[in-house]
Amino acid sequence: MTTYKIAVIPGDGIGKEVMAPALKVLDRVGELCGISFGYSHFDWSCETWLATGSMMPADGMDRLSQHDAILLGAVGYPTVPDHISLWGMLIPIRRDFDQYVNLRPVRLLPGVPCPLAGREPGDIDFWIVRENTEGEYSQIGGRFAEGSEAEGVVQTSVFTRRGTDRIIRYAFELARKLGRPHVSSATKSNGLFHSMPYWDERFSAMAAAYPDVRTDSHHIDILAARFVMHPDRFDVVVGSNLFGDILSDLGPGMTGTIAIAPSANINPEKKFPSMFEPVHGSAPDIAGQGIANPIGQIWAASMMLDHLGEPEAAAMILRAIEQVTATPGVALRTPDMGGTASTTTCGDAVVAALEQ
Amino acid sequence: MTTYKIAVIPGDGIGKEVMAPALKVLDRVGELCGISFGYSHFDWSCETWLATGSMMPADGMDRLSQHDAILLGAVGYPTVPDHISLWGMLIPIRRDFDQYVNLRPVRLLPGVPCPLAGREPGDIDFWIVRENTEGEYSQIGGRFAEGSEAEGVVQTSVFTRRGTDRIIRYAFELARKLGRPHVSSATKSNGLFHSMPYWDERFSAMAAAYPDVRTDSHHIDILAARFVMHPDRFDVVVGSNLFGDILSDLGPGMTGTIAIAPSANINPEKKFPSMFEPVHGSAPDIAGQGIANPIGQIWAASMMLDHLGEPEAAAMILRAIEQVTATPGVALRTPDMGGTASTTTCGDAVVAALEQ
Ligand SMILES: CC(C)[C@H](C(=O)O)[C@@H](O)C(=O)O
Ligand SMILES: CC(C)[C@H](C(=O)O)[C@@H](O)C(=O)O
Repeated sequence: MTTYKIAVIPGDGIGKEVMAPALKVLDRVGELCGISFGYSHFDWSCETWLATGSMMPADGMDRLSQHDAILLGAVGYPTVPDHISLWGMLIPIRRDFDQYVNLRPVRLLPGVPCPLAGREPGDIDFWIVRENTEGEYSQIGGRFAEGSEAEGVVQTSVFTRRGTDRIIRYAFELARKLGRPHVSSATKSNGLFHSMPYWDERFSAMAAAYPDVRTDSHHIDILAARFVMHPDRFDVVVGSNLFGDILSDLGPGMTGTIAIAPSANINPEKKFPSMFEPVHGSAPDIAGQGIANPIGQIWAASMMLDHLGEPEAAAMILRAIEQVTATPGVALRTPDMGGTASTTTCGDAVVAALEQ
Repeated sequence: MTTYKIAVIPGDGIGKEVMAPALKVLDRVGELCGISFGYSHFDWSCETWLATGSMMPADGMDRLSQHDAILLGAVGYPTVPDHISLWGMLIPIRRDFDQYVNLRPVRLLPGVPCPLAGREPGDIDFWIVRENTEGEYSQIGGRFAEGSEAEGVVQTSVFTRRGTDRIIRYAFELARKLGRPHVSSATKSNGLFHSMPYWDERFSAMAAAYPDVRTDSHHIDILAARFVMHPDRFDVVVGSNLFGDILSDLGPGMTGTIAIAPSANINPEKKFPSMFEPVHGSAPDIAGQGIANPIGQIWAASMMLDHLGEPEAAAMILRAIEQVTATPGVALRTPDMGGTASTTTCGDAVVAALEQ
């Protein structure tokens, strides 16, 4: 029996609440598919930072590297500045493990009320491929003339050819693999004078190498509008770190609740462990109430299985999720989906749906 | 009789088509309100660039400065790189005339089919205040290791205290003036390490000076999702140059068509002329067919009148627009709104509605 070593980091807020259901689902799907999981639990979080001044211990990355994958809940706490907590754990893991692909599905699930008029499951079903290690997310820069009237800050984005090409190539390969040979690029070359014209140049160069794949390019402003007006027109959308981030919250927002969307931080070469997390954050406003929607975390576990080479187990989880969201009534839905279910009730419903 | 000197720059593509109806509307409203307009027509465009290598003549800014306001169509042409055309005219005008406020309404008009489920006019009605002179739009940066495997680009954003404070202050003042004392800030301080924590800091400092105004702050990713999920929760939204740009296309997209939304580039101190344009671009795909929706350009003319101190004339235009959009059937609507009207028919309908 294959045993996968999984590093489990619940993190903060509702991250701690949605992890238990995801592990229950993994264990049950493991029984059904003849695989098993060895979990290492890491309580690294903003509480760790408040107590120790670091989000994770000095040997944290070493310890994570001994695992096949990382399952992360959410990071963020009201009394810790976001840039401290995120640059202390989430972002370094993405970078040091070269998880340069952030892959996020945008899919309307059956039974989920859609904020877009007249859209059915099938109308909204595409993938966002987000660059995950460079670009706009950077610590390069700083403050000048601090404290004076002339004060300001500079912030520098870095786009390398290597970083740009590999994410764009991944998008083209994915489009081929899915049998949906169409890639849309998010740009803003009319406003951002250096970075985005370069992005466009590399996108065109890559497109030339994939003549079987249809392409289009959209400035990020109109692209956001087109997501809402024509979500059925997209197959694979590729964007920089920031643009991919924005689109991959907007997309799930358009499908009813960002609480169900997963996010895979992938090192495609499998040189380092990849990391799987829900798109949602730690949601301090509802933390502690036991009402967080566990589906994003469970779907993240499904993407993890796919990455580990267990596509059947992954698909089984996704079918179970869809069975739960498709169930009429309020009993199995958490409040964000208009229901009355607790985190545990919804999670147990997914476990139960697996058996069938 | 007051005569306003207006610099008219139709620009490229549909910019040339939607300008005539806007001037017709202005002339008629002038007759009705006892004001008049002296137009200077400037054919500066990408065609000028192709012919001369510049978007506008060397004394272009001088000539514009002799006007009370600028009415712009749209800039952009398939064979001219966007960063060349935009940094050759639109962006320098915004900067050199210190038009640091970009004000854009997001409003669902009667009769316009809304892509969001179950939303009526009144549910979507708020303002975006976008910083318009600094931030992410910058020419600072360049390419390194050109042509080699190690190639890349850097792009630097600049946020000054002066630039940040004045746009945030404008948002607070607007919220008070509208009697809707609520300002939402667009940030991304969890990912952009220097710029956005600084933005947050200045936003909090300003909020302290407006204790009567309720505030909230949203990372741009979740903010985009919230626009779609809860558009009724916003009153005044303030954002950086890039974030404001994205939100102010997403907003109009949510209200059915970006073709009706206007954009006011304002120098509040009136030291320099302000500039008024539609949010849409030059739309090469439909240019030359006479089917472009003129409402964005007409609404821009209404915002211009407001700025010039003619609020009654401005309101008269907006009422006429709403009367046209509220008219059932296809005859007065351009194709983007599901109708069969030409640009001229739709524009003439607004002129006719003014008389009533
Ligand atoms: C054309 C482009 C440079 C411009 C911008 O990004 O400012 C446009 O999108 C706008 O919003 O006015
Ligand atoms: C928490 C934050 C730094 C993060 C990001 O912007 O990458 C989150 O929004 C995400 O999308 O995973």
